[in-house]
Amino acid sequence: MAAPVSLASWGSFHVGGREGTIADQPARKVRFTPGGVPAKVDPNGTYLIGALYAQYMIPTAPRGRYPLLIWHGGGLSGVCWETTPDDREGWQHYFLHQGWPVYVSDAVERGRSGWSLIQEITGGTALTLPIDNPFERFRIGAGPGFYRRGEVLRGNQFPADDTSYRNFMRQIVPRFTTPDELSLDACDALLQRVGPAMVIAHTQCGFFAWNAAQRRPDALCALLLVEPASIGDPAQIAKLRDIPVLMIYGDYIREDARWPDIRARGVAFAETLRAAGGMVDIVDLPEHGITGNSHMIMMDRNSDQVAALVQKWLAARGLWS
Amino acid sequence: MAAPVSLASWGSFHVGGREGTIADQPARKVRFTPGGVPAKVDPNGTYLIGALYAQYMIPTAPRGRYPLLIWHGGGLSGVCWETTPDDREGWQHYFLHQGWPVYVSDAVERGRSGWSLIQEITGGTALTLPIDNPFERFRIGAGPGFYRRGEVLRGNQFPADDTSYRNFMRQIVPRFTTPDELSLDACDALLQRVGPAMVIAHTQCGFFAWNAAQRRPDALCALLLVEPASIGDPAQIAKLRDIPVLMIYGDYIREDARWPDIRARGVAFAETLRAAGGMVDIVDLPEHGITGNSHMIMMDRNSDQVAALVQKWLAARGLWS
Repeated sequence: MAAPVSLASWGSFHVGGREGTIADQPARKVRFTPGGVPAKVDPNGTYLIGALYAQYMIPTAPRGRYPLLIWHGGGLSGVCWETTPDDREGWQHYFLHQGWPVYVSDAVERGRSGWSLIQEITGGTALTLPIDNPFERFRIGAGPGFYRRGEVLRGNQFPADDTSYRNFMRQIVPRFTTPDELSLDACDALLQRVGPAMVIAHTQCGFFAWNAAQRRPDALCALLLVEPASIGDPAQIAKLRDIPVLMIYGDYIREDARWPDIRARGVAFAETLRAAGGMVDIVDLPEHGITGNSHMIMMDRNSDQVAALVQKWLAARGLWS
Repeated sequence: MAAPVSLASWGSFHVGGREGTIADQPARKVRFTPGGVPAKVDPNGTYLIGALYAQYMIPTAPRGRYPLLIWHGGGLSGVCWETTPDDREGWQHYFLHQGWPVYVSDAVERGRSGWSLIQEITGGTALTLPIDNPFERFRIGAGPGFYRRGEVLRGNQFPADDTSYRNFMRQIVPRFTTPDELSLDACDALLQRVGPAMVIAHTQCGFFAWNAAQRRPDALCALLLVEPASIGDPAQIAKLRDIPVLMIYGDYIREDARWPDIRARGVAFAETLRAAGGMVDIVDLPEHGITGNSHMIMMDRNSDQVAALVQKWLAARGLWS
């Protein structure tokens, strides 16, 4: 099932972040390992907070004109683009096989970006998701009770067998509610380092992608928004005029409790952008004969089919050869 | 500087973990993105906690007889084995170039393993490190004041220029003090999935490696402990008898405030193992003409030289061809 790949280079880095300070807290003695020698820990001091982790893989025979940055959604990390919960190759694999230099990052305060002092410096709360929540909220099942009953939406493509679903839930990481400025600063630092680039952004990171593009339009060659949960700044719509945008929505939107509103706001923003001269394509997958997609499109059993649609769109815009 | 590599496959997975339950907490309404549609969040329920993330890269022409698992130390994630803070290839690269199937993991509650409910379920505190702490505690400088003065130990090999040191500090992630049982269970699950395997373990994960080997001796073909911070269970020493062990210590140990004790306990455990018929090699790098190593040996400027020593040791034991 796995196809080999030849990498010219691969690696990782952190970008962005800033210093944060804690003062007037008492020192503690902490035993870091059972039976280990205790070390004094003084929490006061200066910390680096809010950096962003990115891992890159550069194919030996690149065909993409620009790097492809892939940004995950809330409650997750970059892992969601790697191997799928049912152990197939994910979008990281797909786009690398197409010859894109691929950068998968973890949002600020998620995964390998770390969450040092996020709570202390930004306030806010860490949230995480119980096992039934994504099943019932991400259009795998249709609402309360579906997880307990093991019932998925008719024709649903998410690998919802118990083993795969638990593999997915093991990926869930806590998220804080208040670090948006830190996150945007880090996205900006990433684009400054790697751009010009394309960004694929899922759900929560749709907000970061729209706003990062408005901060640094010259660094964005294309925006690919997979069920973006939010929009950019309407007052700065003109900044997006030269960036081709693709918005993708899955199945079961109309019947959902929240997604009709979320989609409607996204589409309204897209229409504002079109009116300002921008180029936005909106793809509702069922209208293209691709059905059964949950909110976790990159994990659904037809993930490669949707990736191929994205790939075709990129190639049609001269970004791949 | 980067050398290309050909991968037969790569990917990631989570293993281990268990269910944890929260009850009798009030529900909250949370706006997940600025301007987004509020969602009700009920913290009560069942969660998956304590899983471990591993990313694997399998070369097309493997030369290692078994997979090589690489476990980072406290306050860090698997990132510490990737690109070094001064942007050189790290040990992940080194061993992959040698033809080892390499698995880099994040310890439970670190990085991409996530820390959902670790505090609520296990108690304990999250700790993180201020910017001067590793500089003065990891034998880069020699103690208080060295970071402020920008002064490193004579001949020190850590890339301690301001840019590189900050790159290192951006890797720091919070750690909890109490998840050892969860961590050991997850190490066990990893060995069960991937083993038999070799484990390279740094500092805190020395504890996990020794104890994982005692839990599942048949799954460990070799233990390579880089400045292990702790030891295994002396009462179960016989279980380690058939596993070749290499222990590596860097420079400046004798003059340090804590490392003479830590090293002495490690060496005493090794001697107990030898007395029980085990095979342990202890390498103090300066005695082999390799000087200037901090506690972060895999990041020091001579990291490849130490990796080559590890590689030679593995090859000499017939584990590589």
